Amino acid sequence: MPLNDPDRLFPVEPRLRAIARMLYDSVKDLPIVSPHGHCDPGWFAKNERFPNPAELFVVPDHYVFRMLASQGVALEDLGLPRVDGGPVETDPRAIWGRFAENYHLFRGTPSAMWLDHSFEHVFGLTEVLSRDTAEAYYTAIDAKLATPEFLPRALFESFNIEVLATTEGALDDLASHTAIQQSGWSGRVVTTYRPDAVVDPEFEGFADNIAAFGELTGEDTMSWTGYLAAHRARRAFFKTMGATASDHGHPTARTEDLPRTDVERLFQKCLDGTASPQEADAFRGQMLTEMARMSLDDGLTLQIHPGSRRNHNGPVFERFGRDKGFDIPGRTSYVDALAPLLNAVGMEPDLTVIVFTLDETTYGRELAPLAGAYPVLKLGPPWWFFDSYEGIQRFREATTETCGFYNTAGFNDDTRAFCSIPARHDVARRSDCAYLAGLVGTGRLREADAIEVARDLTYQLAKDAYGL
Amino acid sequence: MPLNDPDRLFPVEPRLRAIARMLYDSVKDLPIVSPHGHCDPGWFAKNERFPNPAELFVVPDHYVFRMLASQGVALEDLGLPRVDGGPVETDPRAIWGRFAENYHLFRGTPSAMWLDHSFEHVFGLTEVLSRDTAEAYYTAIDAKLATPEFLPRALFESFNIEVLATTEGALDDLASHTAIQQSGWSGRVVTTYRPDAVVDPEFEGFADNIAAFGELTGEDTMSWTGYLAAHRARRAFFKTMGATASDHGHPTARTEDLPRTDVERLFQKCLDGTASPQEADAFRGQMLTEMARMSLDDGLTLQIHPGSRRNHNGPVFERFGRDKGFDIPGRTSYVDALAPLLNAVGMEPDLTVIVFTLDETTYGRELAPLAGAYPVLKLGPPWWFFDSYEGIQRFREATTETCGFYNTAGFNDDTRAFCSIPARHDVARRSDCAYLAGLVGTGRLREADAIEVARDLTYQLAKDAYGL
Amino acid sequence: MPLNDPDRLFPVEPRLRAIARMLYDSVKDLPIVSPHGHCDPGWFAKNERFPNPAELFVVPDHYVFRMLASQGVALEDLGLPRVDGGPVETDPRAIWGRFAENYHLFRGTPSAMWLDHSFEHVFGLTEVLSRDTAEAYYTAIDAKLATPEFLPRALFESFNIEVLATTEGALDDLASHTAIQQSGWSGRVVTTYRPDAVVDPEFEGFADNIAAFGELTGEDTMSWTGYLAAHRARRAFFKTMGATASDHGHPTARTEDLPRTDVERLFQKCLDGTASPQEADAFRGQMLTEMARMSLDDGLTLQIHPGSRRNHNGPVFERFGRDKGFDIPGRTSYVDALAPLLNAVGMEPDLTVIVFTLDETTYGRELAPLAGAYPVLKLGPPWWFFDSYEGIQRFREATTETCGFYNTAGFNDDTRAFCSIPARHDVARRSDCAYLAGLVGTGRLREADAIEVARDLTYQLAKDAYGL
Repeated sequence: MPLNDPDRLFPVEPRLRAIARMLYDSVKDLPIVSPHGHCDPGWFAKNERFPNPAELFVVPDHYVFRMLASQGVALEDLGLPRVDGGPVETDPRAIWGRFAENYHLFRGTPSAMWLDHSFEHVFGLTEVLSRDTAEAYYTAIDAKLATPEFLPRALFESFNIEVLATTEGALDDLASHTAIQQSGWSGRVVTTYRPDAVVDPEFEGFADNIAAFGELTGEDTMSWTGYLAAHRARRAFFKTMGATASDHGHPTARTEDLPRTDVERLFQKCLDGTASPQEADAFRGQMLTEMARMSLDDGLTLQIHPGSRRNHNGPVFERFGRDKGFDIPGRTSYVDALAPLLNAVGMEPDLTVIVFTLDETTYGRELAPLAGAYPVLKLGPPWWFFDSYEGIQRFREATTETCGFYNTAGFNDDTRAFCSIPARHDVARRSDCAYLAGLVGTGRLREADAIEVARDLTYQLAKDAYGL
Repeated sequence: MPLNDPDRLFPVEPRLRAIARMLYDSVKDLPIVSPHGHCDPGWFAKNERFPNPAELFVVPDHYVFRMLASQGVALEDLGLPRVDGGPVETDPRAIWGRFAENYHLFRGTPSAMWLDHSFEHVFGLTEVLSRDTAEAYYTAIDAKLATPEFLPRALFESFNIEVLATTEGALDDLASHTAIQQSGWSGRVVTTYRPDAVVDPEFEGFADNIAAFGELTGEDTMSWTGYLAAHRARRAFFKTMGATASDHGHPTARTEDLPRTDVERLFQKCLDGTASPQEADAFRGQMLTEMARMSLDDGLTLQIHPGSRRNHNGPVFERFGRDKGFDIPGRTSYVDALAPLLNAVGMEPDLTVIVFTLDETTYGRELAPLAGAYPVLKLGPPWWFFDSYEGIQRFREATTETCGFYNTAGFNDDTRAFCSIPARHDVARRSDCAYLAGLVGTGRLREADAIEVARDLTYQLAKDAYGL
Repeated sequence: MPLNDPDRLFPVEPRLRAIARMLYDSVKDLPIVSPHGHCDPGWFAKNERFPNPAELFVVPDHYVFRMLASQGVALEDLGLPRVDGGPVETDPRAIWGRFAENYHLFRGTPSAMWLDHSFEHVFGLTEVLSRDTAEAYYTAIDAKLATPEFLPRALFESFNIEVLATTEGALDDLASHTAIQQSGWSGRVVTTYRPDAVVDPEFEGFADNIAAFGELTGEDTMSWTGYLAAHRARRAFFKTMGATASDHGHPTARTEDLPRTDVERLFQKCLDGTASPQEADAFRGQMLTEMARMSLDDGLTLQIHPGSRRNHNGPVFERFGRDKGFDIPGRTSYVDALAPLLNAVGMEPDLTVIVFTLDETTYGRELAPLAGAYPVLKLGPPWWFFDSYEGIQRFREATTETCGFYNTAGFNDDTRAFCSIPARHDVARRSDCAYLAGLVGTGRLREADAIEVARDLTYQLAKDAYGL
């Protein structure tokens, strides 16, 4: 018996299953377009082997280690590096063993589906991971990782990736991207402009970042004009490394379009470190509108990822730093928040703004009505906790009736877990085909149209929304 | 192959489909009760032909033109009149062509289902609308519109409408309604009292409206007593034109029950134009309670439609005015907001208050618990963006378990798109029967009870809730 | 035909139904673990017969009488005692008749399912309750209630209850529990520490309660140290009566972890009656963290039931008092609210905090991400209005993908309607098996794992979470 049901995620009712399978067969071999994610471009620049199964599947994956933590496994025992450099588990087999013996915790989660897909379709494993099979798993995966077929570039090619976008900060020198470009390798890996560290006054080291931003660009980033010019310069540089988009991770979706004098005053307070939390939020909001205006000139797609309350647990943040599974979504508002940006540039025909959410209540109430009216707006796919079968069904059910398919932006895998990329796209394709099968079966979509829509959701919408 | 699947919206599983079809067959021919909508009573007063297909299907339907706008079609190119009288497209064939070539945008939306229903069942068309069939569609529809069978009164009769409620402002002279009454035509078209323009201090021209309100009624509307008397007079007049309900479209669901002296002071500030936004909201809230008290005397059902953020896009509003697809829902609260009204009159046995929402999160959390306790409260059907198959499923799934069926108020089509009325009622009937079939199939409702409930949802609950 | 479909709540599709039935068969006979509820321990202490059908099914069940009230039946006519002792219906047959003739109001609600289950499986009735069968029902139930098999202890045993937790206030003498312990009866009935009356400064008679709390424990409850010591003493006493948990019903989920001097000042204001509503909320929040700290010592599981707006209708509260069906949920926030408690004790391996919600929007956005990260947190089952088939599906669909099954706490019946206990557990078991069948059918869960999960959801998770 295979580890993964070949008909997984399709409806069980035979007629619907047949439709879903037909739709899936029409899209399953399309190349992967991955317009937003967090893979390390160094993998493809250096093309060195991945160190071991634990470093591949456990240590970098916050979906995996936070679930283990939630049942009392200490992050130290999973090998997560401490900020203070203190001792943590260094034996990858011990880490792997802890993961394997707790694998039942992932029952019913997308992580289990992604992992089992990788285990079977990337590594050829067919037993269920458990305490009993942990050792055999480790040995098998580790042996494969030592072979040329499992080097990063070879995997990229075998995954059938047409283009992969990574995400780099505004201060990044993009050396790995340069190395990839100069290497002669044909794989398309592009960067994305993510300037949070020089846009968010509450970011660690903001003042220093702004100074570095000035040095890097030769602009006077202590003046508003110079600061904007520095952004323009870095955006242009990122474009030479393939960037077609910027990305912004803010606590709220607030945008502002303030008068010039107010903005300059606000900017100075941010530089001085005297901005209140509300003022910091206003500045971030102003910068979204500024970025949208730059996009009118340089064509970058603007992505907004708002609403995560980062580092919810103080002790974990102090000991292990950012991105350790303790980022929790919060209620997020879009209607009033996006109004300044949309009043400024919302009707522009050549701008694309992709909005994401961690607050599903906004799909039907706010985001679909906005995207179903404003030409610039497209809805990003279900993000993070909602990148899952149920998450995708809820997204489609809550948005399609109001904004249709063509105001959505295809799929993002948004991952730093490289081996999960085929699995994540496969889950998305199956989930969308399952949804479309339901529409066809209930007379809400013609079969011929569904085939076209399936291809668009899988491939074309992402290419169009990101200009790839 | 018909344009519309005869079994559309029914569950696919054969046993459930059979139950749904049986239930639907039992209600599909019941007359249409349309207790809330926005048709122009002038159509039935004058009984003139509809001008052309674009004027019938595109120009008045904000569902249709906002979707086209969201993909970059200019509203001018769809013939929407500009506030400044500037040039817009005047060729209905050109407008129709733009609509037709973008018809794929509506895939998976209720608009597609309503339009296809109208195309096939009203106009006898069986090809799919597209760029290729646009011309044939236009010619066929235009030809039918020229025949007596397609005059407004004939359509009203062929649609099997038992009663149609329109909505008129407090200052309206109801001339069309008078003309219909005097015409001898047997069609029942009634008005609804919608006094927003003289209740909302933020309405355009509020002070002038209050003055006109005084002239019209002979009451001193600059005094609180006279102002209330004017409402009573207009409500009585509206009742002579068939009104059985009032309707109130407020930004929030706030109600108030303030002491008399506070109300008088607040009213004066509203008249003076010195009320703050919060005071304006308080005044609107007070007026809901006042209207409820008048309903105790005159028996009008009170409808509350809260929560739309009107005219979200400034430039569109300035150029095209109200109701142009840029009204976006926002978060809406009911529990504290309705408390003053419900503490004042919530236990009255002879009052009916129908509450609507654009915030689906309130169905299970707020509205069903309130309606499942207070005798005066009934829940209106899914409104606007949620008048759809999925919207109806979510409504029933989130409310039935808490407040049952008998605290809901049947279906509203709420439309100004006359030809969509049969389609909208058909979608609602099918969607409710699909939901009921699920209950029967899973042993949650006896089949005999389901037949009774299907009839109540289709016909009786609307008649009872609106006193029609 | 039986009153209840033997396959109720299972999916209709034959393959899914077979899986669901198989899973259900594997758990249906497991003993009932009821770790949270509101039965009267006096029933089991005294073991006297239940007085009559109306007192058993109508008068104590706020689900039942609020639905009747919502359609205009006066609470007086249902025999609900008035606060002022004024006249209400005293004839149980008349009350029963009113209930029976309105039984159609419960169509599609869990109440109908619970009632029909009790009628058939406890009382052997097979006709549908209605005006026509009201008399026969009354006679049959009343006759059974007179027999030894229908005394409380006998029912407890025939219901196959392994353990039943009741809920008592901090000032309760637990006399009934003592009597049960001393009676030699083998039934396990345990108490739960519910100190709202001495924790909530807005509780009726708070100052008097604090004084009584001091007398009862011999502690100086006017001092912060003595007050905490009094809690510790009562918790210890409750543990001798079997308690394994405390429970806290607060209007919000707010927690605080304030400096000692601030807490002492706040406590004094609460004692003085000078605390503002915000300060009262802060004090309640501080006490949750204090209770969590006590739990670190004494091992009691901490339950938080936040978000009910109690006594929404003033006139009903004045006439009939608390718990009369007019408690309405409101929007509730957890992410910021729980942060102080979770930063203080969230990573403790030996503490269990079970959080409930009446705001389903928090399942996916807040609660599952929190429970999927913090070791102390477990999610309570769907509560109150959401203890239902659809409520359970939404809960599982919104939480499982993020926090899995093992961060949830099994089922609670949370009822004061004793005869509904088997019915409620049966609905939960069927609903969970239906959900699991969907996972198995769509390749998201292996069948062998589903069998294990079904048992855990039914039995083991509740025992573990509550230390029973």
